[in-house]
Amino acid sequence: MSKKPKYIYEFGKKTDGESKMRALLGGKGANLAEMARIGLPVPPGFTITTEVCTYYYDNKNKYPRDLQAQIKHAVANVEKQLGKKLGDCTKPLLFSVRSGARDSMPGMMDTILNLGLNDETVEALAKSSGSPRFAWDCYRRFLQMYGDVVMGVQKRPDEDEEPFEVAIDEIKEELFPNEKGEVDDSRIDAESMKELVSRFKKLIRTRTGRDFPSDPWEQLEGSISAVFSSWMNDRATVYRRKYGIPAEWGTAVNVQAMVFGNSGKNSGSGVGFTRDPATGEKVLYGEFLTNAQGEDVVAGVRTPHAIAKLKKVIPSAHKGLLAVQKTLEKHFKEMQDFEFTIEDEKLYMLQTRNGKRTGLAAVRIAVEMEQEKLINWKTAVQRVPANQLDQVLAPIFDAKAEKAAKTLCKGLPAGPGAAAGRICLNAERAVEMAKKGEVLLVRQETSPEDLRGMIAAAGILTERGGVSSHAALVARQMGKVCVCGAADLEINYKSRTVKVAGETFKEGDFLSINGTSGEVFGGQLPTAPSEIIQVLIEKSLKPSRSRAYKNYAKLMEWCAKGTKLGVRTNADSPTQVAQAISFGAQGIGLTRTEHMFFEGNRIDAMRQMILAEDTVSRKKALKKLLPFQRRDFAGIFTELKGLPATIRLLDPPLHEFLPHDQASQRDLAKKLGVTVSSIKNRVEELHEFNPMLGHRGCRLGNVYPEITEMQARAIFEAAAQVLAKGIDVLPEVMVPLVSFKDELAIQSEIIHRVAKEVQKAKGVKIKYLVGTMIEIPRACLVADEIAEHAQFFSFGTNDLTQTGLGMSRDDSGSFLPHYAEEDIVANNPFASIDQNGVGKLMKLGVEGGRSTRRNIKLGICGEHGGEPDSVKFCHKIGLHYVSCSPFRVPVARLAAAQAALQK
Amino acid sequence: MSKKPKYIYEFGKKTDGESKMRALLGGKGANLAEMARIGLPVPPGFTITTEVCTYYYDNKNKYPRDLQAQIKHAVANVEKQLGKKLGDCTKPLLFSVRSGARDSMPGMMDTILNLGLNDETVEALAKSSGSPRFAWDCYRRFLQMYGDVVMGVQKRPDEDEEPFEVAIDEIKEELFPNEKGEVDDSRIDAESMKELVSRFKKLIRTRTGRDFPSDPWEQLEGSISAVFSSWMNDRATVYRRKYGIPAEWGTAVNVQAMVFGNSGKNSGSGVGFTRDPATGEKVLYGEFLTNAQGEDVVAGVRTPHAIAKLKKVIPSAHKGLLAVQKTLEKHFKEMQDFEFTIEDEKLYMLQTRNGKRTGLAAVRIAVEMEQEKLINWKTAVQRVPANQLDQVLAPIFDAKAEKAAKTLCKGLPAGPGAAAGRICLNAERAVEMAKKGEVLLVRQETSPEDLRGMIAAAGILTERGGVSSHAALVARQMGKVCVCGAADLEINYKSRTVKVAGETFKEGDFLSINGTSGEVFGGQLPTAPSEIIQVLIEKSLKPSRSRAYKNYAKLMEWCAKGTKLGVRTNADSPTQVAQAISFGAQGIGLTRTEHMFFEGNRIDAMRQMILAEDTVSRKKALKKLLPFQRRDFAGIFTELKGLPATIRLLDPPLHEFLPHDQASQRDLAKKLGVTVSSIKNRVEELHEFNPMLGHRGCRLGNVYPEITEMQARAIFEAAAQVLAKGIDVLPEVMVPLVSFKDELAIQSEIIHRVAKEVQKAKGVKIKYLVGTMIEIPRACLVADEIAEHAQFFSFGTNDLTQTGLGMSRDDSGSFLPHYAEEDIVANNPFASIDQNGVGKLMKLGVEGGRSTRRNIKLGICGEHGGEPDSVKFCHKIGLHYVSCSPFRVPVARLAAAQAALQK
Repeated sequence: MSKKPKYIYEFGKKTDGESKMRALLGGKGANLAEMARIGLPVPPGFTITTEVCTYYYDNKNKYPRDLQAQIKHAVANVEKQLGKKLGDCTKPLLFSVRSGARDSMPGMMDTILNLGLNDETVEALAKSSGSPRFAWDCYRRFLQMYGDVVMGVQKRPDEDEEPFEVAIDEIKEELFPNEKGEVDDSRIDAESMKELVSRFKKLIRTRTGRDFPSDPWEQLEGSISAVFSSWMNDRATVYRRKYGIPAEWGTAVNVQAMVFGNSGKNSGSGVGFTRDPATGEKVLYGEFLTNAQGEDVVAGVRTPHAIAKLKKVIPSAHKGLLAVQKTLEKHFKEMQDFEFTIEDEKLYMLQTRNGKRTGLAAVRIAVEMEQEKLINWKTAVQRVPANQLDQVLAPIFDAKAEKAAKTLCKGLPAGPGAAAGRICLNAERAVEMAKKGEVLLVRQETSPEDLRGMIAAAGILTERGGVSSHAALVARQMGKVCVCGAADLEINYKSRTVKVAGETFKEGDFLSINGTSGEVFGGQLPTAPSEIIQVLIEKSLKPSRSRAYKNYAKLMEWCAKGTKLGVRTNADSPTQVAQAISFGAQGIGLTRTEHMFFEGNRIDAMRQMILAEDTVSRKKALKKLLPFQRRDFAGIFTELKGLPATIRLLDPPLHEFLPHDQASQRDLAKKLGVTVSSIKNRVEELHEFNPMLGHRGCRLGNVYPEITEMQARAIFEAAAQVLAKGIDVLPEVMVPLVSFKDELAIQSEIIHRVAKEVQKAKGVKIKYLVGTMIEIPRACLVADEIAEHAQFFSFGTNDLTQTGLGMSRDDSGSFLPHYAEEDIVANNPFASIDQNGVGKLMKLGVEGGRSTRRNIKLGICGEHGGEPDSVKFCHKIGLHYVSCSPFRVPVARLAAAQAALQK
Repeated sequence: MSKKPKYIYEFGKKTDGESKMRALLGGKGANLAEMARIGLPVPPGFTITTEVCTYYYDNKNKYPRDLQAQIKHAVANVEKQLGKKLGDCTKPLLFSVRSGARDSMPGMMDTILNLGLNDETVEALAKSSGSPRFAWDCYRRFLQMYGDVVMGVQKRPDEDEEPFEVAIDEIKEELFPNEKGEVDDSRIDAESMKELVSRFKKLIRTRTGRDFPSDPWEQLEGSISAVFSSWMNDRATVYRRKYGIPAEWGTAVNVQAMVFGNSGKNSGSGVGFTRDPATGEKVLYGEFLTNAQGEDVVAGVRTPHAIAKLKKVIPSAHKGLLAVQKTLEKHFKEMQDFEFTIEDEKLYMLQTRNGKRTGLAAVRIAVEMEQEKLINWKTAVQRVPANQLDQVLAPIFDAKAEKAAKTLCKGLPAGPGAAAGRICLNAERAVEMAKKGEVLLVRQETSPEDLRGMIAAAGILTERGGVSSHAALVARQMGKVCVCGAADLEINYKSRTVKVAGETFKEGDFLSINGTSGEVFGGQLPTAPSEIIQVLIEKSLKPSRSRAYKNYAKLMEWCAKGTKLGVRTNADSPTQVAQAISFGAQGIGLTRTEHMFFEGNRIDAMRQMILAEDTVSRKKALKKLLPFQRRDFAGIFTELKGLPATIRLLDPPLHEFLPHDQASQRDLAKKLGVTVSSIKNRVEELHEFNPMLGHRGCRLGNVYPEITEMQARAIFEAAAQVLAKGIDVLPEVMVPLVSFKDELAIQSEIIHRVAKEVQKAKGVKIKYLVGTMIEIPRACLVADEIAEHAQFFSFGTNDLTQTGLGMSRDDSGSFLPHYAEEDIVANNPFASIDQNGVGKLMKLGVEGGRSTRRNIKLGICGEHGGEPDSVKFCHKIGLHYVSCSPFRVPVARLAAAQAALQK
């Protein structure tokens, strides 16, 4: 206990950390340590742990007492290794300071480079590098980053551009007053860089009232604090929310000796992937810029070159990277995304991490790595983020239409898929415009500020930046369609136009992009189903001709092998059933019978039923509905071929079926031969203040048992019909909205009675179950009682969320977004099960149900059933199946398999 | 284990049972046994246990195998004791067969008398009694009851009168063809009785297709089954629901040797009370009829004589009764309601039970019995049904107005209090009419069929029947105002008129009745507060001058002594606070701040706030509201003199404050200088599908923290003001509708900050608490987390019921009554806490809260806080206080004391 807490982990010659220590060192820090361990060339440095970050926030931005001493010690060790010294006027040591959270949050937090420079050390750097311009360029970059990140010199609301950029533009204009268009930074000479440094210092003083600190130790302290602070900045908060990263995790800070990719022609910086992150193909993939620091590559300001070109430019470095690719994959057994710098032909590794990839790539990489025996099938299943799987099902452009369309230009295929939408040149506007229809966010390049716009857009198109640019990276991660670096675009933010191939598009016009080929088209191209859909549903493509399908099929095969939780589908028609079965659904978890009432002229009989003034005429109207329902159920049973079908009895409040406008009321009155006022009266009578909590669900069947009777009859008569054709049938009749045991007792008595009657009349034996939807908190609390009458429970988590949280989904728009902003809710509870609240109710329901009926069948039919975290939760609490819409079935299957294979 | 189960308990010379065995023998059976034990003259008989009833219902109306043998054995014992024999042609034994449930359910179930009579035994009875008329009268009565109850010969929907009564009326008309008006039954001679018997038999045969069984054993079996079956009849079910008697209890059946009150002038039957059940006065109270069976007294067909008159008619019996009165009270230590029969001057006791009484009487009897040392104060507290206590607070007629009014006639004061309402002559119509306003149910007499109408009516007025008639009995029990036996009324059901004192009133006209004096007045008399209110609130009556007040005060004194649970009040104004404190409230459990916004022109500022388009203008409008709120709070604090005040922050959705009709919108637009369409837009924007689950409660304060800020400021500034006057203040600021911990964290942070600011600015130290309303199921499930920020919890059981049951109170009218009918819900969950559902949530909330904060203050502020069962539940789960409307405070205090004193 007397041992001092360790806040610092070094890497380099002496390495304390390793890749397992992600929680403590962050991903970057842990992997720098790991790379150093396995002999890759890593510039030495140290990592300040995430515990310091937590301490910092828990103690009002104070640090633990011993930290300073440990930093001093670690810096001394780096100095010793490199023979340089922080602040030394002859051999100055320069540092980079970077964040590094447990999970990668690219571009979300701040970075400082070239730390240690000041008016004295810059001269030493000029001397040692032999390039004053390089030294002063480094210095001005440092000033710019430090000024922005640590001292807060940023664009004010009334400004169009970053103040430092304005200063650079000014100096360029002074240097080349007659040139129009972009002047490359490289044309600013040493003297002008020096001038820029002076202007930057002045800018900092004017804006902050404080001087830029020339003491490197002060610089270091400020930078570390800035990185810790950036953990809580807006961008990072938004990002964490989207990806469910807890704020408590904190970030580590990596302090590392600088190497310079910008020290000449034989230097450079780049980003690499051990496989293609967009398609998953096993190639060394990436891009680089010569004479540039890493940030230049990622920022997307200059469009970098494909990594293959490095072979020509700096062959030794390219060779080195191929070796690195092998070492990394062999060691990490995962596709790696790494950063490197070449300083005077010498290759340095600055970072490696598991690479983000598209859903398509994720599937391919997982399947191929298993084939390469790098990983086993269980690991392969875990490697595909379940919520990305639907990307492989996403539509592509209709082949014919795409062929016929004119290609305006081509960019880099950074996020595969097809997207068509209205051009929007600004992220904030994109959020607004997206509410009215699909939007393409078209930008010169994107930055973390654009995140919300990128989330809102259907696709992203940039003029500059490569496949590792911010746009590409974020798109990949979100599964957005993205084309980047389409250099032929001329984007004018002021006039809000995009010129390309001689045409001018205004904001709001349509463009289409193919993120798989990189092509950009004018107008709104029609889409076609993905290859997998073409194979499975349309049967228009042979399985053997689609790699995407084959990979998908392999993955699903593994899922089937690993899964405990069944996956059913929510489907109301034979077509949907067939689709879902193609995706591997094992039955229906929810058929909503009410949808069937809206088809054709059935609605008239339905309305007649609702308008009936006594049981006799209600029964008459119900009699008309019976054959419709019977036919629908027969169709579904036929398609299911003996798989179970959970059929929910009438659920919505009756007023939903009546016309509310005068014209339709008049029509209906005429049709049914009743007065308009009688319809109006009934509509008024049925009006409810809170329909969600009103007369619906089994409350209908209890007040009007003849409805239940009709529906039960339709179900069992349909079952008898289908059985007569030699097809197996397994109806599971589900009573909705039960909260009192006798609600179900009475309903199930009717159902069992009708079942008996039909079986007797038709001379058949029908296997069936009667159960209930658990969607009211009370039902969870008295599940033991309810289970007396229920052979199965199906959790209706939509309504259980609405009642359990006292929150109407339809009305939550006025506060839920605010709640997400303020981190009051971790996730949208209507998207992912609120495990701490609704989840507890479910657990009570499961326990109660099992206490009465040990083998009670347990499922979920809320929309959460297709959301991976919720699926995993359902596995955890021991449900037997989840149910979701047909197209979510693969996602649910994958999540179910992952849940089962975990630990 | 080999011991045979005992289904029969005998009483008489040999007595198996005792009064403790109510559950098994029913109240009547247990007390018959007890009376036999203590030497009172009880005709011998036996009781078939309630277990047999349960068995009967659990086994499809079959009896346990050994029952028949045990009955035979018991009958033989009675035969031996009396020297008579069932079915014997010389000395026939006759039986009565009566129901007897654990709790008395007067008139709800069926009774058979004179069992054992047939064409042979009737002759023996004629001989032994010396009166053929008497014998045949008994026989026809038996036929009538047996035909009705066992064989189901009853009024059909198309008939106006009972068929047996029609036959009686016919024979009367044949006998006395020229008489108009009522012919007394006593004028039907033996021959005609014989004829009636023959007609009754024919009637039974025609109606049922079966013959009346002449075998007494068959009669006995049929009667027992009929009594068991009557446990589930409509009347009994309605009654049980109203009084919360579980159906599982079942009824016992008492078979007892007949004694005849109708065997001559020295015979009679009557009902007695050991104290006056309407006022509680300690007098032998009751009534009798000579030459009549007990049913004649209770049925109310003949108006009986007051018991005092018995002294003259049959002095020995009167003397006997006085002795019985003493013996009963001494033995049972409770006011008894007993039935007796005098057969030829000999007194027989047929029943005793704890007497139902009015709330007024309950209080007086409890207090006086304690003074008489019959019971101790703890028992006295238990003796007053808490929900009857508000009867003593109910209004009486305004003295002046009553004096000025003309008394139309006088009846018996059977249910004290004042009632004015529209005349209604039919129970079913009364239910309908009562929906539109107060109704007086005016009937010749009432019967169990009228129960619903009696529940619906404000008061009951009958032409016939005494203080033990059905009307009087039910009224007493329900606390209904009742005048019975007002013989001067001429009620005509056909013309729907009531003639009295020369005036003719139509159905729908107003009458007023004083149930304390028995007076009937025309028109609608104005009411005045009860004596207790006059003493406590109006201070217009000296305490010493009101016996009612003194008894009440004594009871409340005991309550204070025995209670653990505090009682607070829900009050929004100083006046209400003062009232509640007079009733003994220990503070405010709920102040709804929103009510304050509707006063005067505050609503304009409120609306301005809601229409504000940005925070700045919202704050401006809030600033206008601040002084109003501050003044209100100061008023309340001043009145409370240091008692705690739980103040709930703004709760309802904002649209409730905006005008929804065009005219008001136009007015508002003019007032605020905005466009009508901007108001319309805002109204539309605020429209919600399920406002109950929408943007309200702390969701307002979280999205618009400036509202919370203003309200907190008003509270603390008011507190500072009042403190400055030397008056103690204890605000408890309550955040509504919390379901996520951070909702409360953010709100409480604001409140604490404002508190700090105000205390600093005013230089005072304010004691206060911050807590939350627990009214969402999720809040109960994460109560441990929420308690981190809550110094108190107050259960908002209204909304907790709505969300926990998924049931909108406002919309439940379309199904909840049906649910009550079908026994799906035991009680209206909005009236009495649904202990099995909502109660479980509360328990979870209590446990969670305490696990984090051991001393967390716990209360309830839903409307359930004034309902006795709910109060007892709150005591049970360990809350610290309940809160209810001022006038329910005494009820809650009594219930709280009873809960604490139980066991």
